[in-house]
Amino acid sequence: MAEKNLSIFPVGQENTIAGQYFIGQSYLAVLTLDQVPTFNVTFEPACRNNWHIHHAEQGGGQMLICVAGRGWYQAWGEEPRELHPGDVVNIPAGVKHWHGAAKDSWFQHIALEVPGEDCKVEWLEPVTDEEYNKLS
Amino acid sequence: MAEKNLSIFPVGQENTIAGQYFIGQSYLAVLTLDQVPTFNVTFEPACRNNWHIHHAEQGGGQMLICVAGRGWYQAWGEEPRELHPGDVVNIPAGVKHWHGAAKDSWFQHIALEVPGEDCKVEWLEPVTDEEYNKLS
Repeated sequence: MAEKNLSIFPVGQENTIAGQYFIGQSYLAVLTLDQVPTFNVTFEPACRNNWHIHHAEQGGGQMLICVAGRGWYQAWGEEPRELHPGDVVNIPAGVKHWHGAAKDSWFQHIALEVPGEDCKVEWLEPVTDEEYNKLS
Repeated sequence: MAEKNLSIFPVGQENTIAGQYFIGQSYLAVLTLDQVPTFNVTFEPACRNNWHIHHAEQGGGQMLICVAGRGWYQAWGEEPRELHPGDVVNIPAGVKHWHGAAKDSWFQHIALEVPGEDCKVEWLEPVTDEEYNKLS
């Protein structure tokens, strides 16, 4: 079970929507499906999602608003960025990336699905232990 | 000055962008201007904005994600809705409404400007003391 009261937002249920593309356990709570669909995503320590791309013909992509714990975001070919509560990450459509918790910390972020045309997610290979274990 | 550490998000500066349409002092922090422009808005106790409408030809409107304190949202012709941390408010384009703090509490919400075509805000009359003072 996810730790309770990580933040003011609900943890929700085990992530059965995209959980097969995560290493470790994640949880998903729908905050709203209207306007800009908004979810709260909780990662147990060391949980991260696979490399993936938000494709869109126009607009699209994702925004993360970090609300609890400590985590990481990495865009392909760039240095990993350590994430803390209050941080905002802009992920434009077309950018290959992953995000998840630090090894020793739960992590929680709100995820906003930026409106666009013909939006779809392409799930790719996992972040290897070799890559992930370089992170503190 | 706004109280520090109301939440994990910055309070920012006195709201000089729309402050003239508020009763009481409000503060504004830009979280991001990319993708979905996102701000943190802080209201001192009893501070509220005037009735206003987010106009758009398509899409548009605003979303509020409440992060600290206690406040109110009211759509024209509807009962006021009391707001607490973790609450999300969907405000479609074209809906006349106001939002702000409770009398005895600071209030803070993230505001998301939902993308749309020909978006503009129409500021209207203040929420009268008679209306506001009915709220607890």
